[in-house]
Amino acid sequence: MSRWLLRVEYDGSAFCGWQRQQSGLAVQTVLAAAVKAVDYVDTTRECSMPESAGRTDSGVHAIAMPVHIDMQRPMEDFRLVAALNAHLRPHKVAVLAAEAVADDFHARFSCKGRHYRYVILNRMAPAILARERVWHVHRPLDIRQMQEAANYLLGQHDFSSFRAAGCQAASPLKNLDRLHISQQGDEIWIDASARSFLYHQVRNMVGTLAEFGVGKWQAEYMQEILAMKNRHIAGATAPACGLYFAGADY
Amino acid sequence: MSRWLLRVEYDGSAFCGWQRQQSGLAVQTVLAAAVKAVDYVDTTRECSMPESAGRTDSGVHAIAMPVHIDMQRPMEDFRLVAALNAHLRPHKVAVLAAEAVADDFHARFSCKGRHYRYVILNRMAPAILARERVWHVHRPLDIRQMQEAANYLLGQHDFSSFRAAGCQAASPLKNLDRLHISQQGDEIWIDASARSFLYHQVRNMVGTLAEFGVGKWQAEYMQEILAMKNRHIAGATAPACGLYFAGADY
Repeated sequence: MSRWLLRVEYDGSAFCGWQRQQSGLAVQTVLAAAVKAVDYVDTTRECSMPESAGRTDSGVHAIAMPVHIDMQRPMEDFRLVAALNAHLRPHKVAVLAAEAVADDFHARFSCKGRHYRYVILNRMAPAILARERVWHVHRPLDIRQMQEAANYLLGQHDFSSFRAAGCQAASPLKNLDRLHISQQGDEIWIDASARSFLYHQVRNMVGTLAEFGVGKWQAEYMQEILAMKNRHIAGATAPACGLYFAGADY
Repeated sequence: MSRWLLRVEYDGSAFCGWQRQQSGLAVQTVLAAAVKAVDYVDTTRECSMPESAGRTDSGVHAIAMPVHIDMQRPMEDFRLVAALNAHLRPHKVAVLAAEAVADDFHARFSCKGRHYRYVILNRMAPAILARERVWHVHRPLDIRQMQEAANYLLGQHDFSSFRAAGCQAASPLKNLDRLHISQQGDEIWIDASARSFLYHQVRNMVGTLAEFGVGKWQAEYMQEILAMKNRHIAGATAPACGLYFAGADY
């Protein structure tokens, strides 16, 4: 057996999320089937499921999701990529790259940093070319106000105000390394990095930052939102379709 | 009556092209219907058709297509944008902006420069998030070789080698102002500007540049391709889905 680290791109709008579920098509399921089809050496043996750095929700995309898989059949990396993509073809998921890793490498547990990008389309007109790829906000957002508020979230905090119900993390304490907001044409990109995030943390931070962007709150109020440790104080959850898993560090 | 210049975005994969046709849904038809619905002042009168700077083919997108329309009903610009978009909602087309122009302004005939962008996804893995938005070329392209070859096309030339059958231009002589190739992550952008282009000229130039990119021809051979004035000498027509009408000058 050998373990491989893949870099995977997928269109979240086509899946019920990363993780295999009772109903709906999951990225994990589709990828597991492709691995099984390529790794034909011992088809009687149950395949181990591919594991990813992040378990994204329905609608959330991945530009570069690290995933590890186990293969019995020896293969060259570029052949593995081509073979997996041949089996993935009908689905909106592709393997961008593959590299051999140690047997104890784990895409989730070995991960030291996760990078997300959130894309807001900020203009009057609805999204056309970027439909299902962005959150359309028609009210003008002041990104300087957003960045000022975002800066209060950097470092270690109790992020309970940004934690969704159903979050399985043991503690609401997280260390946010980066929360950078930039204008890209009529899009606003929000880049967030941390070792790990609470459930819906990025989308809840984005939904809250949008309230600062339209001028509902002054930047300093972000301190109060954090201090309240209450999900109802912060802004609404931004939609899944604007969120991208953008990479991870090992 | 007042004339308006609109800036329009559309997803070419949803239309048979810009121009109204016997069969298939055209951007022009959908836009004409929206204008008629908004401009309710005199519904018995036949609406004039919207005119665009460029008449794109099926599958070709527009980031910013200038279009002029005539309206009898007086409106503020932002209300016109919102009203048109409300009527366009089911379709993959939106009005980004509107400004009042003189009655003799014509989106096509007044146009002094047209800008196209062609997007190639250059990697092994197929397009997922950019599906139907790019031309997927899996063989590595050398953009320096492409740019060197492209430079021979700048200025005034007889572009017969890049002219599709059915081209209605009076002359194959065109003046190419810009043909710039850049790497953007795993995408290659080819930006082309001219007062006007022959039918399929951009897609034929791109298909030819790809041959230089894979090393089939040396850059100097582009001179020969031009000199032959023969469509069969140049490369294949690049697919429509990678092409974007990106703007125009007046």
